[in-house]
Amino acid sequence: MTQASSIQRLLNEFERLPGIGPKSAQRIVYWLLNRDPSQVKNLAEAIIDVKDTVRFCNRCFNYAEGELCKICADTQIGKRDAALICVVSEPRDITAIERTGEFNGSYHVLGGAISPMDGIGPDDLTIKELLHRLDAEKTAEVLLATNPNVEGETTAIYLSRLIKPLEVKVTRLASGLPVGGDLEFADEISLGRAIESRYEL
Amino acid sequence: MTQASSIQRLLNEFERLPGIGPKSAQRIVYWLLNRDPSQVKNLAEAIIDVKDTVRFCNRCFNYAEGELCKICADTQIGKRDAALICVVSEPRDITAIERTGEFNGSYHVLGGAISPMDGIGPDDLTIKELLHRLDAEKTAEVLLATNPNVEGETTAIYLSRLIKPLEVKVTRLASGLPVGGDLEFADEISLGRAIESRYEL
Repeated sequence: MTQASSIQRLLNEFERLPGIGPKSAQRIVYWLLNRDPSQVKNLAEAIIDVKDTVRFCNRCFNYAEGELCKICADTQIGKRDAALICVVSEPRDITAIERTGEFNGSYHVLGGAISPMDGIGPDDLTIKELLHRLDAEKTAEVLLATNPNVEGETTAIYLSRLIKPLEVKVTRLASGLPVGGDLEFADEISLGRAIESRYEL
Repeated sequence: MTQASSIQRLLNEFERLPGIGPKSAQRIVYWLLNRDPSQVKNLAEAIIDVKDTVRFCNRCFNYAEGELCKICADTQIGKRDAALICVVSEPRDITAIERTGEFNGSYHVLGGAISPMDGIGPDDLTIKELLHRLDAEKTAEVLLATNPNVEGETTAIYLSRLIKPLEVKVTRLASGLPVGGDLEFADEISLGRAIESRYEL
């Protein structure tokens, strides 16, 4: 090893991050070495800060800095539809849905999906809290936006069986062909779903 | 913006790093949010530590933690050839050369390359210090390993003119086809160099 040990240590730390290989880590570390100390300190402080300040929203379990996340705070002042709850597995799924600009309700983060293989059952998710919200908030519709894979589908089916008897409308994200994709390269399951869910023009 | 502000701040900091786009930044930040606080602190501390402890080697201007970098320290105790100096533009070039395992001399980092367009002249590089070393260390050979581009070639020609009169052997990295590459996809300059530098079998 011909590297200064503090450089080697930082390389190791960066290589541990998802999607960062040895070459990317090296590029970043040399870039940081050439930067102004204050700029580099900003990065380090932002990292510590995020762990110190971020907690879970009391209502929807999204990441939040206070009692409520920004979306729940907006819902409380009437800027978003409180009667429509979109159920997702992880906070990052909220970011993906918000990016579409198509949804103006509130969210509920389950904290995972039912997966017997990984030992995750309904009790490990925030399902009890969701049912409590449906009751307390007079929810009109629950949109199940868990991932379109085995665990996500299982969770969606489980939840729809729980929620339907409460006389709340339950919906699911549509499956089908990705927009801009080629039929030729579509996987057979997505294409099958697209045929099944075909609509009249 | 529906993101907690400390998360947004960290996203912005990561997006500023080279090779990290919005999606990679998001992946890293959510990964960090799920980690143990101590693990995350390690990363932040390693970042601060590297800026606090890393300086330039007194002899070769590589990154170092003490007076001398690890390579110069090894050279001083006779583990590396002190009479052979490889001249590079940046410390990261040392890492690339060390990775080959083909070189066992010492290095000299210029801190850039001559580039009139960017206003970088010979006086902005550590050329004076290099000439001083050649004199003090009784150097037998200088291998010019600046990049094979306009600035690197200019710097190599400039240095060879300075050093040759001192009766020190001056060599340059060979140019040619990258090993494992296809003739079909080789750029014409590299292929031209490969023909020019052809050798007898």
